[in-house]
Parts: sequence; C-alpha cells; structure tokens
Amino acid sequence: MAVSLPNVLVLKPTPFITLLGEQFFASKKFTFLKAYDSPLPLHQFLSTHSHSIKAILSSVGAHVTADILQLLPEVGLVVTTSVGLNQVDVPECRRRGIKLANAGHIFSDDVADLAVGLLIDVLRKVSASDGYLRKGLWATKWDYPLGSKLGCKQVGIVGLGNIGYGVAKRLEAFGCSVSYCSRKRKPFVSYPFYESVSELAANCDVLMICCGLTDQTHHMINKEVLSALGKEGVIVNIGRGAIIDEKEMVRCLVQGEIAGAGLDVFENEPDVPEELFAMDNVVLSPHIAVFTQESFKDLRDLLVGNLEAFFTNKPLLSEYED
Amino acid sequence: MAVSLPNVLVLKPTPFITLLGEQFFASKKFTFLKAYDSPLPLHQFLSTHSHSIKAILSSVGAHVTADILQLLPEVGLVVTTSVGLNQVDVPECRRRGIKLANAGHIFSDDVADLAVGLLIDVLRKVSASDGYLRKGLWATKWDYPLGSKLGCKQVGIVGLGNIGYGVAKRLEAFGCSVSYCSRKRKPFVSYPFYESVSELAANCDVLMICCGLTDQTHHMINKEVLSALGKEGVIVNIGRGAIIDEKEMVRCLVQGEIAGAGLDVFENEPDVPEELFAMDNVVLSPHIAVFTQESFKDLRDLLVGNLEAFFTNKPLLSEYED
Repeated sequence: MAVSLPNVLVLKPTPFITLLGEQFFASKKFTFLKAYDSPLPLHQFLSTHSHSIKAILSSVGAHVTADILQLLPEVGLVVTTSVGLNQVDVPECRRRGIKLANAGHIFSDDVADLAVGLLIDVLRKVSASDGYLRKGLWATKWDYPLGSKLGCKQVGIVGLGNIGYGVAKRLEAFGCSVSYCSRKRKPFVSYPFYESVSELAANCDVLMICCGLTDQTHHMINKEVLSALGKEGVIVNIGRGAIIDEKEMVRCLVQGEIAGAGLDVFENEPDVPEELFAMDNVVLSPHIAVFTQESFKDLRDLLVGNLEAFFTNKPLLSEYED
Repeated sequence: MAVSLPNVLVLKPTPFITLLGEQFFASKKFTFLKAYDSPLPLHQFLSTHSHSIKAILSSVGAHVTADILQLLPEVGLVVTTSVGLNQVDVPECRRRGIKLANAGHIFSDDVADLAVGLLIDVLRKVSASDGYLRKGLWATKWDYPLGSKLGCKQVGIVGLGNIGYGVAKRLEAFGCSVSYCSRKRKPFVSYPFYESVSELAANCDVLMICCGLTDQTHHMINKEVLSALGKEGVIVNIGRGAIIDEKEMVRCLVQGEIAGAGLDVFENEPDVPEELFAMDNVVLSPHIAVFTQESFKDLRDLLVGNLEAFFTNKPLLSEYED
C-alpha cells in the first residue's frame, strides 16, 4: 500500500532546486508539491491541497502571505532557502504558531567573498577591463583609466552580523580600516561604531550594505546617506535591493555624486535600472552572492534536515529568530 | 644663461607618464628626452644625443638592449617603472657599471589585491555575470551557472616574494589553505613548501603566478604543470605572460583540461589569444595590476627621487638587486 507522504508546498521555481537537480531532494519523510506546475490558479490549487500541505518552502520572491496561510490551516513550518525572511509574513506565522527555519549561516562566507570581490572589481575596474580587452581595444588605443587602491580605504559596514563581520575580517587583510553601524554596538569588536548610517557614510570611502531588509532598513540608504558618502564614495550592496533608495542611487551615479557601485541585489529583481548598463564604474551581478556548488549542497542538507526534523517532531536545525 | 640639464631618455610612451600627466615629472635636475617624439630613426636619434643622455627611463616593452647602450656611453643609470627588469639587458648594464633602480615594493599591495580580485572573479563569475546582466538576460532566462566557493580552496603560490606573501595573507582571511614553491624555502613562513612547481600544482586547486620572468621561469608553467593542476584547477597570472606557455594554456582551457584562468599578463602584449575572448571561465585585464592613482603617485616620487639622487651623487632610493 502506498504511504501518502505529507506535502511541502513550493510556490515558485527556485534556482536552488533547478541548479542542484531534483534528485538531491528525495526524502522518505515528505514530497514537494509544486504550485507552478499546475494549470490551476494559485488559490484554487491551494484550496484543492489545503489539508495535505504541512510545510512551505519559500525562496526569494516567493511570498508567503497571510492570504496564502489562510488557505493552508495544516501548515506548521515555513522553511526558506534564504537568510533573510523579508518575503515571509513573519508576524502572521508567529500568530498561527507556524515555525520558521532559514538558511542559517551557511552562506555567510560566500556572501562576504562576493562582497569583497565586488569591491575589488569596482575599485580596480576588473569587469570593465575584461570588457575593454574582449572588444580588442588594448591593441588599438591607450586610454585605460587608473583604478583606486584598496588598502588605504576606510570601509563602513552597515550591519555587523555574520556576513558583515566576515567582510570586515577579509578587508583587514587588505589593509582597510573598518568601522560600522548596527542596531547595537557589538561588544566583541574594537572597530569604531556609529549610531547613524549618515555619520558612518560621512566618515568612510566605501559603504558595504550587509544588513537584512526590514521595515527599519527599507530605503535606509537615502539621499542624505549617499550625499554623506560623497563623490569619491563607493557603495556595495549584497543585502537586499530595497535597503537602498535605488532611484536616488542611480541619480547619484548618473550625476557623479558618488563614484561607483557593486550591486548583487536590486529593488525590483530581475529588473535592473537601465541607466546602470552604460556605466563602467558599476559592477552588476544577478543576486548570486550565495551561488556556489558547495553552499548549495550544504543548504540542501540543511533544508531537507529541517523538513525531516519537523516531520519527525525533532528540533529544527536552523530555527529563525527575529 | 640657460643651464643645460642632463637628459633622461624615454624610449616609448608609458601609461605611467601619460595617465599621471607630464607636469608631475618636472625637475630642476634633469629633463626627459623622448625618442618617440622625434621623426628620426632610433639609432640616428640616439647618436645625435649620445653625449647628453645620462640615464634611461624604461617601462614594460621599452627594451634596453646592448645595442642601445653601445650608442650611449654616458649612461650611468637605468630606472624602470616596473618591478621586473626583464626588458633590460641586466648583465650588459652590470658590465658597463650602469646602476639599476626599479619600482621597489611600491606596487606589491596593488598587485596582490588584483590577484585576489581576479581569483574571486573567476571562481564566482563576477565579470561573466556583469556581462550577462547587461545583456538583459536576467529577466528572460535562468541558466546562470553556480560558482565555486573560495574558502575551501588549496592555493599554491609560485614565488613567495612580497607580492606572493601579500596574496597568501589575504587568502588566509578567506579561509584558503596556502602552499608555495620558490627558489628557496622561506624560513619565516609555515606554509607547506614544494621544490617543484608540478608537485605544487598537483596538490592545489588554484595556482597563483607571483614570480618574476627570468630564463629559469620562462615557460615554467608548461604542459606538465597544467596537467598536474587538472580539470578542476584555476590559474591566476599577475607575474609576466611568458612564465606560462600561453599556447599550451589556451589549449588546456579550450579542451577543458583546466577549469579557468584570471590573466593580467600575456606572452605578446598587447596581443591576447582570441580563443580567450569567447570564454566566460576566464577573466582578462590589460596588465593593470599596478594601475592605481595612489601607487602611480608613489612611483612618481620614487622615480624622480632616484633620478635626482643619481644626478646629485646620492644613494639610490630603490637600487635593483638580482
């Protein structure tokens, strides 16, 4: 007799499963139920399966709203492929007693690596020079602009969690001076602390956005902060696009009010402001800070581990805490 | 009465002077005499000025040969804008009692920074993703390949001088394991030492070429070494192009016998093998490892300082030692 396994709802295709391959996710404790494979409208699909769905897998852009939860009374866990849970209605989950598990710290090193990579790339014009050379311009003309030295830079880190701290430790090895702002001063570091992000921006050459997106951080990097960063200043964002007022940042870049940007995240992904495409003082990547084979396999283990723990009433491996 | 200052011969235009601006080089102790501004053939030009030329400024690609020195009996100093002196006939200079001054360690940090930037770029596909995004592909399709994690890599450094050691210290902050080969074992480090570069390549995931170009290192990275590095292996070269057998490296990249490359230098600059232009597992830059505003200004001070010291019979600031 076939045993009916509990369903884990997958709302949208996620590169995590697509790139790693579905066979990696086989489990004897649950099956994935993909809303996007069904011809039914989402609400009808959810109503049809409302009692078999016990958990939800959510990735960036796959919103878990109060409306959806309303239709799924049996859901006891939302597990995310991301560190940030800004796509999940966390208060509604709490109200319904739904547990939350995120990607924990699995990605911290990869994200910190990319943050430093984007910074080196912007300052030393790596992607721009790669394009210059592939266009065959090296042999025909010599107008390649000078880059800027990494080592003497004052770097301001916005959000000194696992990722921000990883960025700081890496940049120290390049001779950068680190300061930071964060919700609270961290007792374990001696880096200068600023309570206001504007004050941090005014005292650094590079602003690294390493915090999560919340109501408090939405558009936190606004006109005032960008103006404090100034026309020699560079911004790197590996947090979430909407932490920066993107329209204002693009205006500053267009008008030379800041010097450059390294951006892995955008306010309306996958849309990227077209003005950026013509600039060689910006480096753009499609939200790939966590995209390594190694971390994807670690995440697979964590994600399947969290789901199996939930279905066997064991403690979650990476329960999310606000 | 106009005082006639001694001439410093400049053989070829150098980006160093072009990008920084000539006014930076004004001195009351000497003037620059540019062979390339004259309509005369080089030998005729040199014969005309043979007794006024007391020193030569040499940059990458501006060869100082025995033939040239033969025409200039009064030359007592060759000063280079580079760290390596492979474009200078050093034995002939020694024989003639000509002093040599190079760029010293001014560029070490910049070169180490770019080496790490190229490695992150290759492993995490930064330049490739920048191009992908600018082509507008993010919104239309999802086939972006996964990168590879930096932290778990075994990195083999070829040449543990100032630059190689700088690369090692930076990569340690990313969690990489470092080993090296060098002419001699370095007593001040505990990194595993390999006498043979093939053995180093066989025991690492990434080979960083940080040595100078000499008769001994010419084509040192050959078929055997690349084969030992293997199909998961990545090579980064910020030394000189001809340290690698470029034709063989290109063949290995085309046939998938190594995984990728980050190249700032090439065997026949400014020519770059065309096969590389179509590859998104290579990152190419036009010999810009030393190209920062800050280092160029430091070099200007060092270069003018060396020339003024020479013309006032003071010790050179950065005398070259083999």
